[in-house]
Amino acid sequence: MALPSRRSRWSALVTALAHPVRILPVTFVVGSIVGTLILLLPGMRSEGQSGNGLLEASFTSVSAVTVTGLSTVDTSTYWTPLGQVVVLVLVQIGGFGFVTLATILGVVVGGRIGLRSRLAAQVDLHLVNLGEVIPLVKRILTTMLAFEAAVAVVLTVGFASRHGEGWGDAAWHGVFYSVMAFNNAGFALASDSLVGYAGDAALILPISLAVFVGAMGFPVLAELSKRWRRPERWSIHTRLTVWGSFLLLGAGTLLFAVVEWNNSATMGSMTFTEKLVTSIEGGVMPRSGGFNSIDYAEARPETTLISTIMMFIGGGSASTAGGIKITTFFLLGYVILAEVRGDPDVAIGSRRIGASTLRQALTVALLAVMLVVVGTLALLAMAEVTLEEALFEVTSAFGTTGLSMGVTGTLPPGAQVVLMTLMLIGRVGTVATASALALRTQPRRFHLPEERPIIG
Amino acid sequence: MALPSRRSRWSALVTALAHPVRILPVTFVVGSIVGTLILLLPGMRSEGQSGNGLLEASFTSVSAVTVTGLSTVDTSTYWTPLGQVVVLVLVQIGGFGFVTLATILGVVVGGRIGLRSRLAAQVDLHLVNLGEVIPLVKRILTTMLAFEAAVAVVLTVGFASRHGEGWGDAAWHGVFYSVMAFNNAGFALASDSLVGYAGDAALILPISLAVFVGAMGFPVLAELSKRWRRPERWSIHTRLTVWGSFLLLGAGTLLFAVVEWNNSATMGSMTFTEKLVTSIEGGVMPRSGGFNSIDYAEARPETTLISTIMMFIGGGSASTAGGIKITTFFLLGYVILAEVRGDPDVAIGSRRIGASTLRQALTVALLAVMLVVVGTLALLAMAEVTLEEALFEVTSAFGTTGLSMGVTGTLPPGAQVVLMTLMLIGRVGTVATASALALRTQPRRFHLPEERPIIG
Ligand SMILES: [K+]
Ligand SMILES: [K+]
Repeated sequence: MALPSRRSRWSALVTALAHPVRILPVTFVVGSIVGTLILLLPGMRSEGQSGNGLLEASFTSVSAVTVTGLSTVDTSTYWTPLGQVVVLVLVQIGGFGFVTLATILGVVVGGRIGLRSRLAAQVDLHLVNLGEVIPLVKRILTTMLAFEAAVAVVLTVGFASRHGEGWGDAAWHGVFYSVMAFNNAGFALASDSLVGYAGDAALILPISLAVFVGAMGFPVLAELSKRWRRPERWSIHTRLTVWGSFLLLGAGTLLFAVVEWNNSATMGSMTFTEKLVTSIEGGVMPRSGGFNSIDYAEARPETTLISTIMMFIGGGSASTAGGIKITTFFLLGYVILAEVRGDPDVAIGSRRIGASTLRQALTVALLAVMLVVVGTLALLAMAEVTLEEALFEVTSAFGTTGLSMGVTGTLPPGAQVVLMTLMLIGRVGTVATASALALRTQPRRFHLPEERPIIG
Repeated sequence: MALPSRRSRWSALVTALAHPVRILPVTFVVGSIVGTLILLLPGMRSEGQSGNGLLEASFTSVSAVTVTGLSTVDTSTYWTPLGQVVVLVLVQIGGFGFVTLATILGVVVGGRIGLRSRLAAQVDLHLVNLGEVIPLVKRILTTMLAFEAAVAVVLTVGFASRHGEGWGDAAWHGVFYSVMAFNNAGFALASDSLVGYAGDAALILPISLAVFVGAMGFPVLAELSKRWRRPERWSIHTRLTVWGSFLLLGAGTLLFAVVEWNNSATMGSMTFTEKLVTSIEGGVMPRSGGFNSIDYAEARPETTLISTIMMFIGGGSASTAGGIKITTFFLLGYVILAEVRGDPDVAIGSRRIGASTLRQALTVALLAVMLVVVGTLALLAMAEVTLEEALFEVTSAFGTTGLSMGVTGTLPPGAQVVLMTLMLIGRVGTVATASALALRTQPRRFHLPEERPIIG
């Protein structure tokens, strides 16, 4: 038997990597590598930094492309202004790219088939024709840029009028934070994130609003733009996402306020209004903006646990937010309700949720739990951190949130690679990742006889 | 309209409490109250204890009836020998009672209907007739007592020959630990559990074996006694429980050994054999025997996290072990596998698992997660404990495990009540509890139109 020629081996590799279920993972890995190479170019790092910078560049690139915002270095001092622009561009490309791909997969192909089949179907171009895709991409791009521009203007005025910055600096800061906020990427131009602007409603509220809107996801924003006056005609997806977002915002803000109100290490010494603004920020950011005006290392353990749960839940599907997604979380809640009540169907409003949708939700949530647990164990084994710290940083990476208790920069290289892996898997999606790695490609086509083990 | 007479109000209350879905919860609450009253009788507490002893008595009673073994006092010194006998009897009644009730519900009524309906159906005596139940109860009782007697003899010889105890003491210790082990209740006659016998294979291995067998559950033991030579004919339930138990035992032992082997605060200074024995014990006990030969407060955080997960999973259905149960855990694993592979059915061997079974498994697991999270938050808010400690004690209570990092006795009364509640809910089962509390009794009978939100 002749060995395959170099050319045919190469084309076999390309074919394997271009397999539909591998497109998302491969795109993000390639994007991260390109970003790393750019950040390694001369002029990106500030003078006087030690080491070859490979780990710093790759961590920053992965964190930017996955719109996370976790960082092992201080973005404002380690990178030159040019390097910071590169980070900004990587965030914008990563955010726009993911939202576009996820919207095409989710909306055009729709939820008619299992997650894996859905991924496989997209390149079957009978389903996704270019005539539908190009206007969609244009609408997404226009919406993003228009929203970012509006917020950038508001922020620029805030930076100039309230923090004494020249218009040039103010505009750069305005654009930077607007892009970061709408893309749910928590990079900041100060080592302590937004602590320097803590409680300033004119900056924190617009940034929080941009994060909140960005985390809804394009499919929801598109439906709202058409039907925002008639909530009774919204799809189940939009209803779950919108009401779920407000519910989590309310609960998160309330719990943050209750727990931290008098904590002198966080917001105990602020004015009433500042506390209110900071609490809203504390309710918004864990899902998954990643900015902070308090030091999470000083927060009470209730706050870090609640924030960890919020990071795990994340934002809307096909959005720049991460986590298992709001729809997944609330669907699972409806399953519990139906089972406890003894209902034969899981119903939301007057609509039934099918068994295969529930199976997808379950899979997404369980794979996420597995990943977070394994990642936490890895961090505990590799570094001297507490369970609270390990769980927080790992969930922040998996949820592409970017909040930190301050230990990410102190982790050994191996643990940093764990976080990088989690950011990539968290962005691509656990099911897509697992499917891309799965070996069997011929699913079973026939039904087997049923059996019921005892549960619980 | 006339007010209902006192008599009719009383009978309405009895009817409400005797409603089928409330039988299990009410039984365990009543059992705990009776146990508390007995432990408050004169002669139960040792001389010189302060306070009225109500909290100590009720915590011990709940812990014993739910076969947990968590304790706020030192069983060996706080209670008189008579008090210790009461604890032993409460454990035996709690363990036998639960296994009997759960076996009747699970095996005779079977998995033909939803969990809530299954609970409702049992008192519909067409399904459970006494002719089937009485022989079943006899078999359960005979099996338990025979096994306990055999282990008690082995242990008695061990205590007498290897630890210089007189035959009277040795027999009492042998009976005590045998009953505790087979009922998966982690009460010990020393303040440091089994640390005094650490690594003694002649005692630790029989105790571990009794815990392991007890955690299989009667339905599995009954099937094994008939068909142990022919694994290919076992039901899915037995297969999942048996292979799952061995898999978790192997994984737990291995991870415990790897992490703790050289930890000088736990087993670093033991001999090779002692380390092996202690590792096996460390693999068995978290699901959910509750004995320990190392101080979990000194274990590495990886060990406490892995043990927490094992406590959460627990043992077999209709057994004296707690947790979400092995079948629930592995069924959810099969769901992930099917979804990632793109299979239309969730299959185990050549059997399909139905959507309603999966919905039950999902509900059991998610309610458990909710409970553990809420309990952990409550402990963090009420006491000065770390996340690691709070999560460990709460999961131990929910999983009716009985392992402790040593903080249960130091918690304020409110937090101890939280743990008592968790033990009761953990024993009765999350779904049974939620159903008992649910208000709507008329489930929806018709099917609604289907809709598929985007997942993940
Ligand atoms: K983020
Ligand atoms: K126990």
